[in-house]
Amino acid sequence: MVSVKDLNQRLLDAQYAVRGRIVDKAQQMEEKGEKIIYCNIGNPQIFKQKPLTYVREVLSLVTYPELLKNEEVLKTFHADSVKKAKFIMEKMPMGVGAYSQSPGVPFIRQACADFIKRRDGIETKRERIILTDGASKGVQAVLFALLRNDNDGIMIPIPQYPLYSATLTLYGGTLVDYYLDEANSWQLNGQSLKDSYEKAKAKGINPVAITVINPGNPTGAVLSEDNVKMIINFARSHNLSILADEVYQENVYPKDKKFHSFAKVMSDMNITDVALFSFHSMSKGFYGECGIRAGYFELRNIPEDVLAQFTKQQSISLCSNVVGQVATYLMVTPPVEGEESYDLYMQERNGILSNMKEKARILGEGLNKIPGMFCEVPEGAMYAFVRFELPDTEDTKKMSENELVKYEAKRDEQYCMSLLEETNICVVPGSGFGQKPGTMHFRTTFLPPKEDIEALVEKMKVFHTKYSASIK
Amino acid sequence: MVSVKDLNQRLLDAQYAVRGRIVDKAQQMEEKGEKIIYCNIGNPQIFKQKPLTYVREVLSLVTYPELLKNEEVLKTFHADSVKKAKFIMEKMPMGVGAYSQSPGVPFIRQACADFIKRRDGIETKRERIILTDGASKGVQAVLFALLRNDNDGIMIPIPQYPLYSATLTLYGGTLVDYYLDEANSWQLNGQSLKDSYEKAKAKGINPVAITVINPGNPTGAVLSEDNVKMIINFARSHNLSILADEVYQENVYPKDKKFHSFAKVMSDMNITDVALFSFHSMSKGFYGECGIRAGYFELRNIPEDVLAQFTKQQSISLCSNVVGQVATYLMVTPPVEGEESYDLYMQERNGILSNMKEKARILGEGLNKIPGMFCEVPEGAMYAFVRFELPDTEDTKKMSENELVKYEAKRDEQYCMSLLEETNICVVPGSGFGQKPGTMHFRTTFLPPKEDIEALVEKMKVFHTKYSASIK
Repeated sequence: MVSVKDLNQRLLDAQYAVRGRIVDKAQQMEEKGEKIIYCNIGNPQIFKQKPLTYVREVLSLVTYPELLKNEEVLKTFHADSVKKAKFIMEKMPMGVGAYSQSPGVPFIRQACADFIKRRDGIETKRERIILTDGASKGVQAVLFALLRNDNDGIMIPIPQYPLYSATLTLYGGTLVDYYLDEANSWQLNGQSLKDSYEKAKAKGINPVAITVINPGNPTGAVLSEDNVKMIINFARSHNLSILADEVYQENVYPKDKKFHSFAKVMSDMNITDVALFSFHSMSKGFYGECGIRAGYFELRNIPEDVLAQFTKQQSISLCSNVVGQVATYLMVTPPVEGEESYDLYMQERNGILSNMKEKARILGEGLNKIPGMFCEVPEGAMYAFVRFELPDTEDTKKMSENELVKYEAKRDEQYCMSLLEETNICVVPGSGFGQKPGTMHFRTTFLPPKEDIEALVEKMKVFHTKYSASIK
Repeated sequence: MVSVKDLNQRLLDAQYAVRGRIVDKAQQMEEKGEKIIYCNIGNPQIFKQKPLTYVREVLSLVTYPELLKNEEVLKTFHADSVKKAKFIMEKMPMGVGAYSQSPGVPFIRQACADFIKRRDGIETKRERIILTDGASKGVQAVLFALLRNDNDGIMIPIPQYPLYSATLTLYGGTLVDYYLDEANSWQLNGQSLKDSYEKAKAKGINPVAITVINPGNPTGAVLSEDNVKMIINFARSHNLSILADEVYQENVYPKDKKFHSFAKVMSDMNITDVALFSFHSMSKGFYGECGIRAGYFELRNIPEDVLAQFTKQQSISLCSNVVGQVATYLMVTPPVEGEESYDLYMQERNGILSNMKEKARILGEGLNKIPGMFCEVPEGAMYAFVRFELPDTEDTKKMSENELVKYEAKRDEQYCMSLLEETNICVVPGSGFGQKPGTMHFRTTFLPPKEDIEALVEKMKVFHTKYSASIK
């Protein structure tokens, strides 16, 4: 019989904090009837964020195309949703129940290319778009392809979304961490990149790519255009491919901030010799369609023979789910002014985004007022990465720096576990994302309803004060 | 810039014939306006096989639950579909747009466990069911987990479904091939298993698991209960886990044949110390819902700590697509007698299965009558693995056995390419699945409409005769 020692060591080693021990505990509490506030994961629809009517109207028609023959039923749908569903069924008469071509349905890949052109004013081709079950599958495919052996390294931000570290553990390759600059609104820092690269090189590691998450997860930061330029120049001078995780591109809140895609900035710089993989998803933004598993990635500045390998890779898993592919099509072809569902679409979209912006402010400002807690108002994405301080104990005073780091990893997990047990708020300890030695953080989403966010700030204040006071 | 030499060698090495060079060529021909008969892939809905009304009614309601409030619209749905959709929305009020728990929605996992109990009369628990994006993702997860290093081997049937060989190439581990017994209706042969195992051991390979596909892909064979028993005993005496690919369990055509699940046979034998992973999918059977990507696998005779590792593995990719999870729920809870959609469901189900059975007969009997072509009438699944002979050439007469094998791999690919170019019929060369040295085959589905299958037999006869005559 198979035992743990018979399993792949890489699987045993992999960690994924967003769904780890604390979440298990939360689920156990929930099963006992307690109401948990799940701030551990960017999963908007568990908080009853309504899916966009346009998206769901079309998906239901395409899922059961018999409805398209029923004029009475169609009256309850927006006319442009019906038109769009009919168009989709014309383009793919086999419907959502047939395997598509492995990298996705051709006209949907073309629509993604057109979307990039509308967004950035730059050209791409449908052959350079691969449709995936959410962005994470695309990230995993690219990491797999770029790692030749354990000696190859991928530069990953710290703090990072643990998909990256977990996937590296599974597939081999070395995590080359670079610190984001908390003192500078979590932007990337050229010196920090250089230090990280050189430290890796000195250890005999060969960095092959850099991952950037913009807007940031877990930081909530939006990178400036200059910062993106700096990263591209760094990648170019060090011969690195770029993995641009841009799934939060619609989640930018301050009026004076803007999302700058790597593809656009690179094109403005006339750089064509840095390989770029850009990931997008329907799970985030104002869609929040996490469960549908819809997304794509674009491959830019990649030779044809390399592209062919990525296409082959997709074929081994047949294709991404076709309902998700259609959803991606809807993401990249929203209703336009003058169409029947446009007003409702804009109202739903703006409602969701302005609500998120407001909750980001309440959370950020509220937590920042708690003594011993430090948090910028998130500018983007769905998260705040909150630093907190705890009093020294008799133990910590005696520790070396190394000992302290290890201790604080446990300490932030203990803190988050207590927070859950005392307040039913489920957040993820900073050690799951990585953090500078000697600091402690947790990541929380600002997705619960506004009144819950207000209550959450209040509960955290009470908890943190009490918890700090209890330390001896 | 990234070049092919910068890519993971395992990716470069991976081959997936079902979607390879011949299919590429077929797609090019199609883009030029030619009508291709795609017999390369088990993809029923490209041939307009209608999805089951019950399945699509419920999926459309669950995808757009606003419809559930509209009494007028609901009149056009079957009452039990509406009831089922309402029940699903009660059990998962967050709907299909939220991430579920990583191994799947709990009540759906429970329904899969109940399905196994109804099918086999044996117990399992929802914790031992993991929902996946089709069966292939489950297979890949298990292979990944069971391979500790390149020295570990997985016993794979030859001919095999190339998902297995491609995944082994990607993840490492060694393919330990065992031949299916063509002379005995493609059953497994104890001596062949033993030979294969011992040959691997002699090379220093450590076989850790055996894969069995029942009903067979590409063979169309249905394993007898005795054959399944023999395999279980073999696995037990050699300490192998079993991967039972049972996605064609509904596709059994002869009246005197029956699908025997590994779980049931193992339970009847009172064996509890052989780890079993059983895979099921909604892509096959009479559903043919390939594009939805729905499936599950059951873990049996696996300790809790090993199970926990499989659960963690799922969490790294968040969850399988939730529309697919709901589809799996519908697969395992079909309408029952007395419910409004029962009659239509049975009519659609039986129509599809009897049509497949008839087409299997037409194809099998027809091809078998062609001189130089040998094919049993498929008993199950959706494929025939057809052996064909070509005259010796001046070259082949001079070849050693090794040279001949290499030559024949190219020869069957050339044959299939010519078949495509001459007749627009797209099949997959036997070398993509593996075949005994010195034999040539191709795999074809029997999914096209009946009249196309009849025409296909006729076209193949003309082609094969002409092609054979042209060889010098």
